[in-house]
Amino acid sequence: MNKLQSMRRYQIGPVYRRDQPAMTRGRYREFYQCDFDIAGESEPMLADSECVLILTEVLSGLGFSNYTVRVNHRLLLDGIFQCCGVSEALFRPICSAVDKLDKCSWDEVAKEMSDKGLADEPIERIRQLVLTPRGGADLVDQLRENPALKGNAMVTQALDDMSRLFRYLCLLGCPDQVRFDLSLARGLDYYTGLIYEAVLEPTPDCNVTVGSVAGGGRYDKLVGMFTKKDIPCVGLSIGVERLFTILEQMHKAKEQKIRTTATQVYVCSAQKNLLEERLRLCGQLWRAGLPAAHSLRSNPKLLTQFQYCEDTGVPIALIIGESELRDNKVKLRCIASRKERLVDRDSCVDEVRAELASLAAAQQKTEQ
Amino acid sequence: MNKLQSMRRYQIGPVYRRDQPAMTRGRYREFYQCDFDIAGESEPMLADSECVLILTEVLSGLGFSNYTVRVNHRLLLDGIFQCCGVSEALFRPICSAVDKLDKCSWDEVAKEMSDKGLADEPIERIRQLVLTPRGGADLVDQLRENPALKGNAMVTQALDDMSRLFRYLCLLGCPDQVRFDLSLARGLDYYTGLIYEAVLEPTPDCNVTVGSVAGGGRYDKLVGMFTKKDIPCVGLSIGVERLFTILEQMHKAKEQKIRTTATQVYVCSAQKNLLEERLRLCGQLWRAGLPAAHSLRSNPKLLTQFQYCEDTGVPIALIIGESELRDNKVKLRCIASRKERLVDRDSCVDEVRAELASLAAAQQKTEQ
Repeated sequence: MNKLQSMRRYQIGPVYRRDQPAMTRGRYREFYQCDFDIAGESEPMLADSECVLILTEVLSGLGFSNYTVRVNHRLLLDGIFQCCGVSEALFRPICSAVDKLDKCSWDEVAKEMSDKGLADEPIERIRQLVLTPRGGADLVDQLRENPALKGNAMVTQALDDMSRLFRYLCLLGCPDQVRFDLSLARGLDYYTGLIYEAVLEPTPDCNVTVGSVAGGGRYDKLVGMFTKKDIPCVGLSIGVERLFTILEQMHKAKEQKIRTTATQVYVCSAQKNLLEERLRLCGQLWRAGLPAAHSLRSNPKLLTQFQYCEDTGVPIALIIGESELRDNKVKLRCIASRKERLVDRDSCVDEVRAELASLAAAQQKTEQ
Repeated sequence: MNKLQSMRRYQIGPVYRRDQPAMTRGRYREFYQCDFDIAGESEPMLADSECVLILTEVLSGLGFSNYTVRVNHRLLLDGIFQCCGVSEALFRPICSAVDKLDKCSWDEVAKEMSDKGLADEPIERIRQLVLTPRGGADLVDQLRENPALKGNAMVTQALDDMSRLFRYLCLLGCPDQVRFDLSLARGLDYYTGLIYEAVLEPTPDCNVTVGSVAGGGRYDKLVGMFTKKDIPCVGLSIGVERLFTILEQMHKAKEQKIRTTATQVYVCSAQKNLLEERLRLCGQLWRAGLPAAHSLRSNPKLLTQFQYCEDTGVPIALIIGESELRDNKVKLRCIASRKERLVDRDSCVDEVRAELASLAAAQQKTEQ
């Protein structure tokens, strides 16, 4: 269409699923998602490892430390099915049964496989493989030596990929929270290579088991289904609403307040009839790019203005009264410490910036 | 619903209009818009002047200098209609006729008024008023003295508002591009007070007459139509796609390239088989928060990598070769000047930051 054959892109916005809504589980047809994708030719596993790294960066950046990224490879699953004696026609149905392992017991999954026409012996052989403990590059080596898989072309190629993935992630300095997990299958049919999924483990701050919060994989044939040319792609989707709900719970558990305003400075009047002076000062702060606000009432009480700052977490108040105006000063109040000092009106932007920087530094020190 | 009775909010996203699409004029049912609104009780014209200021900030911030914000007041229009002998039932229909003055001649608008049942005399009286030259606070004073309007309660209240508006805008340091224009009517029925609209005037860079690119006003009764309680509101909408189309034309006219990537550093290999070293360096830059990228091919040619930087406007390349690796160095190349220098591998993040800062400073100097 637009002849683009390679790009990196991200998008945050509403997306739609063709599915019956399940409101009680927060599953709507329209929901918010953050997507990242890399399209175009790439050295094997290079774009893929970048996607896995980005997934860890997003979760770490949002303040999560209790996540695991489970990785697996569609070709490896197919290879395993082949080695276990599953006919090719059953690859996808059996894969979709494996996908339920995070919600169902092995017995239920085995029953589904059996219902789909698979004999007991291949089911048992699949069990022995996909329920292998999770691992890292070590698991790749183990699987290479596994006599049941040796010589299978799909397995060999997939293990080469997985071994590259772990090497690249190591070079990129990716956090050590990536686990090779043969029981990961991912629901969507269009994946063709690496697949991954991020799960949050319960913590003291957030003991809800929430399952998958993000996932993705390689889909080399999807673009070709809609255009004349295959364009190899790899990408990930992050469930924004789900993560935000969890973050809210975590903040609540820690009794942390969530700020709903970006205001850093609140311009207060100490006496009546100073509305126009407040406006003049706000204009000065806004032109300097400082997120400032003031009361939209003409004569608010000083205590009410301070209370607003405390309630909403605005860190600094600038106060003007008759005497400050006369002396060309403003009073700078640090809301948390209640300390006040007079500063020159002309340098108040710099004073506010310095105060904000010192508050941020103190905050960072507390958190360490 | 959520009991919120006051807020400032902005939103950028898809919105929908219930209208027949006019594709050729770029008028779709779904389009992108940036909205800003202030809800809740406010001293008269205080929130309103903040909205007008924000409108000028957005347009200036996007690099436009050739804009005018036309302002008017719905109550003033109604007062004028009353003074001219229009019956109250005709206020909205006549207002909607005035709204067409930016696209149609006065004769066409007068014909519409006549078709809607207005006599020739009131039409002529309206003409004399709404076609008054545009102005600022001076026009407010002129209208106060206009014998045709004197004593009308709606006119008096609206003129008090307009006079406050100009005083507040002056205190806020709002650019002098706001024009009081009695012929501005705005299409939507729900406005109850101040209305405004931003228009771009043709310039040598962009001689297309594009008309309105943003607009808004006070709508004190709209929330009450959907909830039990009236909540006074004022806001504005900016036509994002329209502005971006115009910006593109302007860049084209100036032969300025529009960058489609945010990448600031491109990691290049000077020899074959250095893919893994590129990854290691990329990881280092990414962890430092620098927007870095590299080729997804295993052995790209150095010239191809430089060409990519030139084509996409990436300002800096970091080059690694065997000798750099041996000496724990990287070569920093400034793409525009083609100047290269060796820097220590350990301090390359700081070197890149310093180079970017000096490039930005030089750029700013050129633009002045």
